[in-house]
Amino acid sequence: MDYMKESLRLHGEWKGKIEVVCRAPLQTRDDLSLAYTPGVAAPCLEIQKHPEQSFTLTRRGNTVAVVTDGTAVLGLGDIGPEAGMPVMEGKCALFKSFADVDAIPICVRSKDVDEIVRTVSLIAGSFGGVNLEDIAAPRCFEIERRLKEVCDIPVFHDDQHGTAVVVAAAFLNACRLTGRKPSEVRGVVNGVGAAGTAIADFLLQLGVGELILCDRNGILVEGDPSLSEAHAAMARRTNPRRVTGKLADAMRGADLFVGVSAPGIVTQDMVRSMAKNAMVFAMANPVPEILPNEALEAGAAVVGTGRSDYPNQINNVLAFPGIFRGALDVRASDINGEMLVAAAQAIASYIPEGELSVSNLLPSALDRKVSAAVAAAVAEAARRSGVARA
Amino acid sequence: MDYMKESLRLHGEWKGKIEVVCRAPLQTRDDLSLAYTPGVAAPCLEIQKHPEQSFTLTRRGNTVAVVTDGTAVLGLGDIGPEAGMPVMEGKCALFKSFADVDAIPICVRSKDVDEIVRTVSLIAGSFGGVNLEDIAAPRCFEIERRLKEVCDIPVFHDDQHGTAVVVAAAFLNACRLTGRKPSEVRGVVNGVGAAGTAIADFLLQLGVGELILCDRNGILVEGDPSLSEAHAAMARRTNPRRVTGKLADAMRGADLFVGVSAPGIVTQDMVRSMAKNAMVFAMANPVPEILPNEALEAGAAVVGTGRSDYPNQINNVLAFPGIFRGALDVRASDINGEMLVAAAQAIASYIPEGELSVSNLLPSALDRKVSAAVAAAVAEAARRSGVARA
Repeated sequence: MDYMKESLRLHGEWKGKIEVVCRAPLQTRDDLSLAYTPGVAAPCLEIQKHPEQSFTLTRRGNTVAVVTDGTAVLGLGDIGPEAGMPVMEGKCALFKSFADVDAIPICVRSKDVDEIVRTVSLIAGSFGGVNLEDIAAPRCFEIERRLKEVCDIPVFHDDQHGTAVVVAAAFLNACRLTGRKPSEVRGVVNGVGAAGTAIADFLLQLGVGELILCDRNGILVEGDPSLSEAHAAMARRTNPRRVTGKLADAMRGADLFVGVSAPGIVTQDMVRSMAKNAMVFAMANPVPEILPNEALEAGAAVVGTGRSDYPNQINNVLAFPGIFRGALDVRASDINGEMLVAAAQAIASYIPEGELSVSNLLPSALDRKVSAAVAAAVAEAARRSGVARA
Repeated sequence: MDYMKESLRLHGEWKGKIEVVCRAPLQTRDDLSLAYTPGVAAPCLEIQKHPEQSFTLTRRGNTVAVVTDGTAVLGLGDIGPEAGMPVMEGKCALFKSFADVDAIPICVRSKDVDEIVRTVSLIAGSFGGVNLEDIAAPRCFEIERRLKEVCDIPVFHDDQHGTAVVVAAAFLNACRLTGRKPSEVRGVVNGVGAAGTAIADFLLQLGVGELILCDRNGILVEGDPSLSEAHAAMARRTNPRRVTGKLADAMRGADLFVGVSAPGIVTQDMVRSMAKNAMVFAMANPVPEILPNEALEAGAAVVGTGRSDYPNQINNVLAFPGIFRGALDVRASDINGEMLVAAAQAIASYIPEGELSVSNLLPSALDRKVSAAVAAAVAEAARRSGVARA
């Protein structure tokens, strides 16, 4: 099927992938008096007295804003806020379909960090959480950091943390499969944008033995004056042996390759130069850094990609619906590191020991039950870490 | 029934009067590839090329933001943005139920005009229209004016124009009933906030013969240095005979009284001082300026209130759903005066000549077919006045 052509046709037919429906009866005079004036004054006054009641007396407690500025939409780049809306709506449809979260697409017509932060924080009282989406790095880091500071609801950048959670789940299971402990793993992450940075952070948090980051200019090394501020910060926390060179140099002897970069840039020779039973997660979209059969032929033990037509699809839909479901269920004030680790572990352990294999590393992206398992783990981690408010 | 108590209980049970549902199938791999990646890139690119396609390839063309700052919620005053949310949700439920418009409640945590205007304009790309709600006067006038300037979608303050449209419909039918032409009518509007100002504007536009405005300090007279800027502007356009004094002075000899003020402030003596067969619209909520039976006893020919338990309910739900339905149907860039007049005429003429009576001045607020009649008239007026884009 030509997905592009058929998708365009269907979008014209659907005229929107989500819609709003009414939960309250509005047929009789009494209905109107209860759902609207004069009765509605009662919940209003109740919320005025107890602002946290806005989470239960309105839909706020189940509602997430999916916010973009349209600057890093899919692999298409800066196509503008309105052009990003089909992706935001798709995300909202997935939120509902996978975790019964009511999500609302909001595109912001600005690329200014202050303005985006101010806009989102001013409308945050309408929502129980904020999912940032497809905002270009490095701006996305500051927007997320500042919104987390000023908002009393969870703020989560899915391109960073959703991706990192699912990669971490794949990594944990690949370690189980290949008999490694995280602390024994030498890893390489290629691509140091929003996703790559968050993946590196997460792998460090999981205690990976050594991590080297690469971008199109080669390996990130501490002290390199040509690095951006964000890259310099990552360089200080990685590459302890100060390896220099290109991706091929980084990959030599590595146990793990994670690519969030560009199609076809990993050769079979590079995979051959890795440690025995290497773990390869090649997530460039739509064409991975190396095709699974080529990587396996070159000696990789296990391969994951972003694609649904190969085994081991690393798809954010395994993470974000359940993460927000869990956060909303306990009215969390934040989505913190503990909750993300809990989500990764829940996804990984969803595959029972006996069913784990090189072609069954992760649950299916279509399995609706994953989000419930993730939600339960995330809610529990929120309680444990003190950010649950209900 | 104790509406307040029962409404609070029901709001706790409903946990939101609206929710988001999914319109696109998401069961199979192909479903995901078409509604989301990779297929969704096609509508994104199409919108990038042709921005107006965002109205048809996403839900934007059917979606309205219901925006408040929580400063004038019902008769409760400035109760804060979150506390206004039950009203906003109720409005959204009415939008869907009466006109299949998808409406999203947005409360803005600011009372600063610049900031509210900037916030709404920055998220306007997500919506096909903006319904402002429960924002205090005089700030609401500037917010609406400036948003209409900067937004390429219709902006409409329902407390002003929705109310004015329904009052105008009631006025047109009361004139038919009592054999008056608008140009022969001497009218009084008591209460010069958002609603009173818009009603006065609308009556002037309909060619009412003379109009006097009153607020709690008495009759507005041109040149009075104690008037606010907004009131001074209204004084210049009204009260040509420069009548001075209080409400009782204004009402002497008047054909029409419109109250958007306070309970019980109109006496039977005041009604007796009006012209024969006077028209009285007493819309203070929940207790009108004068009760219908008292006004009729004092000689009024026809009385309307805001209440559903008396005849002739002047309820905005007769107007706003159909007005936005019509505007969205032709992708109007604005909701202009021609469209509002068309809406008022459509509501008035919805009552067939033979059925018009002193107790049947307006359609029932529960009649779903009114919005279709309003929508058709509004769409036609948009085309005629050159603001239709589809």
